[in-house]
Amino acid sequence: MGEETEFRFLRACRGETVDITPVWFMRQAGRYMKAYRDLKEKHTFLEMCKTPELAAEVTLQPLDALGVDAAIIFADILLPLEPMGTGLEFTRGDGPVVPRPIKNKKDVDKLRPVNAEEQLGFVGDAIRIVRSEISGKMPLIGFAAAPFTLCSYMVEGGKSRDFNATKMMMYEFPDVWATLMDKVCTVLVDYLAMQVKAGAQVLQVFDSWVGCLGPADYTQYILPYSKRVLDGLKGLGVPVIHFSTGTSTLLDRVRDAGGDVISFDWRIHLDDAWETIGFDKPIQGNLDPSILMAPIPVIRERVLDVLRRAGGRPGHIFNLGHGIFQHTPVDHVKAVVDMVHQYRHE
Amino acid sequence: MGEETEFRFLRACRGETVDITPVWFMRQAGRYMKAYRDLKEKHTFLEMCKTPELAAEVTLQPLDALGVDAAIIFADILLPLEPMGTGLEFTRGDGPVVPRPIKNKKDVDKLRPVNAEEQLGFVGDAIRIVRSEISGKMPLIGFAAAPFTLCSYMVEGGKSRDFNATKMMMYEFPDVWATLMDKVCTVLVDYLAMQVKAGAQVLQVFDSWVGCLGPADYTQYILPYSKRVLDGLKGLGVPVIHFSTGTSTLLDRVRDAGGDVISFDWRIHLDDAWETIGFDKPIQGNLDPSILMAPIPVIRERVLDVLRRAGGRPGHIFNLGHGIFQHTPVDHVKAVVDMVHQYRHE
Repeated sequence: MGEETEFRFLRACRGETVDITPVWFMRQAGRYMKAYRDLKEKHTFLEMCKTPELAAEVTLQPLDALGVDAAIIFADILLPLEPMGTGLEFTRGDGPVVPRPIKNKKDVDKLRPVNAEEQLGFVGDAIRIVRSEISGKMPLIGFAAAPFTLCSYMVEGGKSRDFNATKMMMYEFPDVWATLMDKVCTVLVDYLAMQVKAGAQVLQVFDSWVGCLGPADYTQYILPYSKRVLDGLKGLGVPVIHFSTGTSTLLDRVRDAGGDVISFDWRIHLDDAWETIGFDKPIQGNLDPSILMAPIPVIRERVLDVLRRAGGRPGHIFNLGHGIFQHTPVDHVKAVVDMVHQYRHE
Repeated sequence: MGEETEFRFLRACRGETVDITPVWFMRQAGRYMKAYRDLKEKHTFLEMCKTPELAAEVTLQPLDALGVDAAIIFADILLPLEPMGTGLEFTRGDGPVVPRPIKNKKDVDKLRPVNAEEQLGFVGDAIRIVRSEISGKMPLIGFAAAPFTLCSYMVEGGKSRDFNATKMMMYEFPDVWATLMDKVCTVLVDYLAMQVKAGAQVLQVFDSWVGCLGPADYTQYILPYSKRVLDGLKGLGVPVIHFSTGTSTLLDRVRDAGGDVISFDWRIHLDDAWETIGFDKPIQGNLDPSILMAPIPVIRERVLDVLRRAGGRPGHIFNLGHGIFQHTPVDHVKAVVDMVHQYRHE
């Protein structure tokens, strides 16, 4: 333990008081940065994910440039799909394609167990490199998808607007869905545990698309599995952030599923969300990433609104409601970090 | 007035007691029906919209087959774009493309005023044909987009996931946004008034994509314009349904913008939404259209849940949270009508 536990980001994850509000951004390493685009010209996205030196380099790119309070390992939520056997390609632009999607029980039965250490060890190696670079400066976040979001890509074969194939598996073949989610839970817990073993000091579980569901579906088909993953991480000794979008009406259930910090999007005022979740629970959020492309005075107004709504209560981590968009000016992102760090609660 | 005012759908729109809950479906005329697909083989989508006999035929297709309580004129929310001058194409699959999107003040200034009677009169003609066919049997709904949803297509040039171009116009050029919304409001009120003059007995205003915004944006950039349209329809003497999706946290503001009936999606329990909106206000909703593709027992469970949550209060119209999907079995849609009509509140 020692000094590392005193990082304001880690203190906020535990609901402890901090000097100033910690801030980092989802997709803070990415296409909006020139250094990233330069590297991307020489390597494919998957090469960058699977080559520890490159993944580490990308992870480090934004840290000094932005002055954020945490690093997040550069990886993709879909990396476990390759060892599971569905395949994974990034051919159409940067959108993922799953070449052998899961359509039925037979496909689920064929899914392979994953040895995270061996088959996804490159993520662990990248984590070790990054830790050796930033140790003592800021903590490092590891991450994975939540079960629903990972399964939705597996069933839809890629991105989706309506998630009809996924919902149909839930409704029509609940046993197949249960088996699929079950297998995915095991993979996710092992994968995240491996990341902690490699040096990740915080974990974030991304349920990016679960907001397509209503409360009954979330309770019946999702919550037990998210809970299984989040319970499975409890013994690891690191805080876990449970992230989702479009879940304004599901936040009490998202909290019940677990996680030390609940991260939500801009569709709900931060104070309303925190009240629903309970002020005893740390939260993360919730600026609309579109705002980062707005003029600085608009950004300032919205950043201050988020901070004012947080009200100086312990346990707020400033972040976006979703990842940074490609065409975001870097200096706007940096400006937000400065606004958050200069803000003092009255 | 006379018998027409006694239709249970119209009574529910006014918050009056009904014998059984009225039901209709967004996109109840469409690709999931064989009769529609047959017609679509011989005509383009825009031909079908612009030929009153064809639009009327499509409007009538589902009525006997389903036994619904209302007809909705077959048209597209984007039809006003052609006379406004941005163009409108349905080339990529069935997704709309706006060939001359609105990027700046100059583009907004070039937008042309619309003479709804002359330039969109084919919708009025279709309404007249349908009324002559169904008069005395069920009421006919006319519709248009809400200002935000129409403008989002104009600015993005088609469908969007993140609505970044639209948000950027709001944030960076609020005056341009205001002028654009202003022009659109005028067109929408005239267009909807023309539909009522032609015989539409109810209107629905579709704010399909406004759920991408947070509460502050909705209040500042959307509400005043939606209100202007809804206020502008008050003198027409027909009930107006104000529809949106993904707006669970905005429903109080959506109600404040106006409309006699508030229509919302499945992301919130119906009784929670109704409580927020106020039980004195009629509501419409809120089955997930994906559920229509589920097995009948799952459909039944969810339909009964919606009806139970409505609790027999006057002023509930059963509908989906969004339009019927293409691959929905017709007999499932029919089954839902029967479930709703057979249900008796205890």
